[in-house]
Amino acid sequence: MPRNAFYAQSGGVTAVINASAAGVIETARQHPDRIGRVFAGRNGIIGALTEDLIDTGAESAAAIAALRHTPSGAFGSCRYKLKGLDKNKAEYERLIEVFKAHDIGYFFYNGGGDSADTCLKVSQIAGALGYPIQAIHVPKTVDNDLPITDCCPGFGSVAKYVAVSIREAGYDVASMAKTSTKVFILEVMGRHAGWIAAAGGLAAEKEGDAPHLILFPEIPFDQAGFLGRVQACVQRFGYCAVVASEGLHNASGEFLSEAGSKDAFGHAQLGGLAPLLAGLIKDELKLKYHWAVADYLQRAARHIASKTDVEQSYACGRAAVEMALAGKSGVMVTIVRDSAAPYRWSIGEAPLDRIANVEKKMPREFISEDGFHITQRCREYLSPLIQGEDYPPYVDGLPRYIQLTNVPVPKKLAAPFTVK
Amino acid sequence: MPRNAFYAQSGGVTAVINASAAGVIETARQHPDRIGRVFAGRNGIIGALTEDLIDTGAESAAAIAALRHTPSGAFGSCRYKLKGLDKNKAEYERLIEVFKAHDIGYFFYNGGGDSADTCLKVSQIAGALGYPIQAIHVPKTVDNDLPITDCCPGFGSVAKYVAVSIREAGYDVASMAKTSTKVFILEVMGRHAGWIAAAGGLAAEKEGDAPHLILFPEIPFDQAGFLGRVQACVQRFGYCAVVASEGLHNASGEFLSEAGSKDAFGHAQLGGLAPLLAGLIKDELKLKYHWAVADYLQRAARHIASKTDVEQSYACGRAAVEMALAGKSGVMVTIVRDSAAPYRWSIGEAPLDRIANVEKKMPREFISEDGFHITQRCREYLSPLIQGEDYPPYVDGLPRYIQLTNVPVPKKLAAPFTVK
Repeated sequence: MPRNAFYAQSGGVTAVINASAAGVIETARQHPDRIGRVFAGRNGIIGALTEDLIDTGAESAAAIAALRHTPSGAFGSCRYKLKGLDKNKAEYERLIEVFKAHDIGYFFYNGGGDSADTCLKVSQIAGALGYPIQAIHVPKTVDNDLPITDCCPGFGSVAKYVAVSIREAGYDVASMAKTSTKVFILEVMGRHAGWIAAAGGLAAEKEGDAPHLILFPEIPFDQAGFLGRVQACVQRFGYCAVVASEGLHNASGEFLSEAGSKDAFGHAQLGGLAPLLAGLIKDELKLKYHWAVADYLQRAARHIASKTDVEQSYACGRAAVEMALAGKSGVMVTIVRDSAAPYRWSIGEAPLDRIANVEKKMPREFISEDGFHITQRCREYLSPLIQGEDYPPYVDGLPRYIQLTNVPVPKKLAAPFTVK
Repeated sequence: MPRNAFYAQSGGVTAVINASAAGVIETARQHPDRIGRVFAGRNGIIGALTEDLIDTGAESAAAIAALRHTPSGAFGSCRYKLKGLDKNKAEYERLIEVFKAHDIGYFFYNGGGDSADTCLKVSQIAGALGYPIQAIHVPKTVDNDLPITDCCPGFGSVAKYVAVSIREAGYDVASMAKTSTKVFILEVMGRHAGWIAAAGGLAAEKEGDAPHLILFPEIPFDQAGFLGRVQACVQRFGYCAVVASEGLHNASGEFLSEAGSKDAFGHAQLGGLAPLLAGLIKDELKLKYHWAVADYLQRAARHIASKTDVEQSYACGRAAVEMALAGKSGVMVTIVRDSAAPYRWSIGEAPLDRIANVEKKMPREFISEDGFHITQRCREYLSPLIQGEDYPPYVDGLPRYIQLTNVPVPKKLAAPFTVK
């Protein structure tokens, strides 16, 4: 008898996480003998805890296919991390109740490092609480900070967005610099790892190209060094374009800018580094500046997604189902770089206990010796990830993204469950 | 005997001003019997004053054609406004010296309202100082605030960028809202006119779609009304996406946010409205927020340019040359809406004294009665302007934009000229 599957999206969404969803659902539909229905959690694991399930079977094949070109999390995502089995056993017992009630035997969780921890804990239910379930993690994070996998679905597209954007803004500033803006700062995401900021560096193909400077969270901010570089750059090229990671911090490890609030995982909510740096440039160098903060635009920018990233995201979703059908559990799908030039990749896997809560930062050899740009090795790593365009369909000048009907699965449990 | 032409770019650059340059140069090249060489001013009118001319004849046909898909100002732009003939006669005498030395009989100036004033003054040289020159203005401004013309080249592309971006960010926030961000604010350009902010409204096709609220410079900021709307929107749809014009001001006409510095035209340099609004939402509504400031990214975003805008920009450049060849001067090329549905446009013209220094704001009937969104009439006006995609070529995952060689024309005048 086929058992049902549960799929959910977790953490910050991306331009391509729905491509992974399409990969999961389309592949599951090809195996009706093994997988019955695919239920999606409304708002991630919260949907499982509250028995708020979505019947993906109610969606047409065309709607599921359209997920491939639709950014954001079509079923809703969440920032919610399961506590340890010893800390909140009630949550696990509730999960089992819901899984049992809906005969869920496959658990596909689509998220980053924090979510891998949740997926790992669910996979442990089988052993610890005796409920048979296979849990497979589908990687997703714009931060590209998961270990073992060569790269993370979602990253290639934000990388492409940032590289395209700083190239375009660089051209703009270059043409204005004579009488107007001399310094431009683009603030990008990346809480602790500088991968996104590094991707901006791909736009600089020859000396003088934007970006001239990159500020990484891996390199403590050197104010005097930075200002000296900016000034030298303006003197030499007439202007200076900077990509700054939101996670930039000082030598004592404090973020340069904090919004003061924290998310559910206890991370500081960042933002506002670019105006801070701009103020510094105004006060210390008296140069005219402009700044941009891309924020969600960068991770939602499906209109300029990397074709490579879309393909990998879809493939990760498909592989997760195939791994489940092969009897696996407690693993994350990975992307393996089989060849650097020409770039060739395939699908691999890694045990979740080696993934959960590990952050892969930029290796020092990917950052130039002076700390303000990327190295050739870094370019060689990053460049394949932004290759190819994969434009969504347009209607009336705007991308046509799918909004699913998200039909709820009738609840079977009498008791509600409150998520704290 | 053919006379030479001078072309220059002025004011803030756009994703498509170089398409107008291509229109001017390619059309001039088709009339060697009437137009000799096309010189471009390096950094706008400053290039004329300082005899810093670029020989566009040194560029291949392919390079000029590539301008059509290259954002920014390929010859450099400037923020510099000629004073009145009575205030600084030396500047006009200098212009005539340079024009005479290089036998320039055609003056094509590519800019907005301030630049139209410069072009008008140059056209008056012919009468006031007896130097025969024909001055034609090629419209350009992302602000869409020029009178008479139906729209302004450069606007359609920023409009498309903003509408695409808020749609994408809206999808993102919708999927996160359950446990994370509830309010998202995108700050866009538009110093005194709300056209760019209005364009964001195109993304909202049905009730509940982002953006839910638009803040226009034409409507004084009503803090209590705004906060009430945000809260109601979050209660109803789970989240709220806002597009805010940088030019938002209070009832007494003060900008909500000022960077404190002014540009060469005496305009305040704005920026930082989004974090200000976000702080308000945090303090008054205690809702989790995110904000983005698109800044130069929006006007440089050639990767998502409007095909309609690209075609109109090119056509305006071409028409400027044709008007000059027809003996005209002191006019601006305009875009005429011949038919609303189906959208059809053609080229017209307007006398520069009716253009210079006039700002066309949003008509009140384009803004909903409550002041927080656009009306159906506004949608009908805006929608044709973002139609069609016109993707640039990509190499290695990045758009391939042209950097011209910008070969200087040998100087013929002994005396230098200092621009104050």
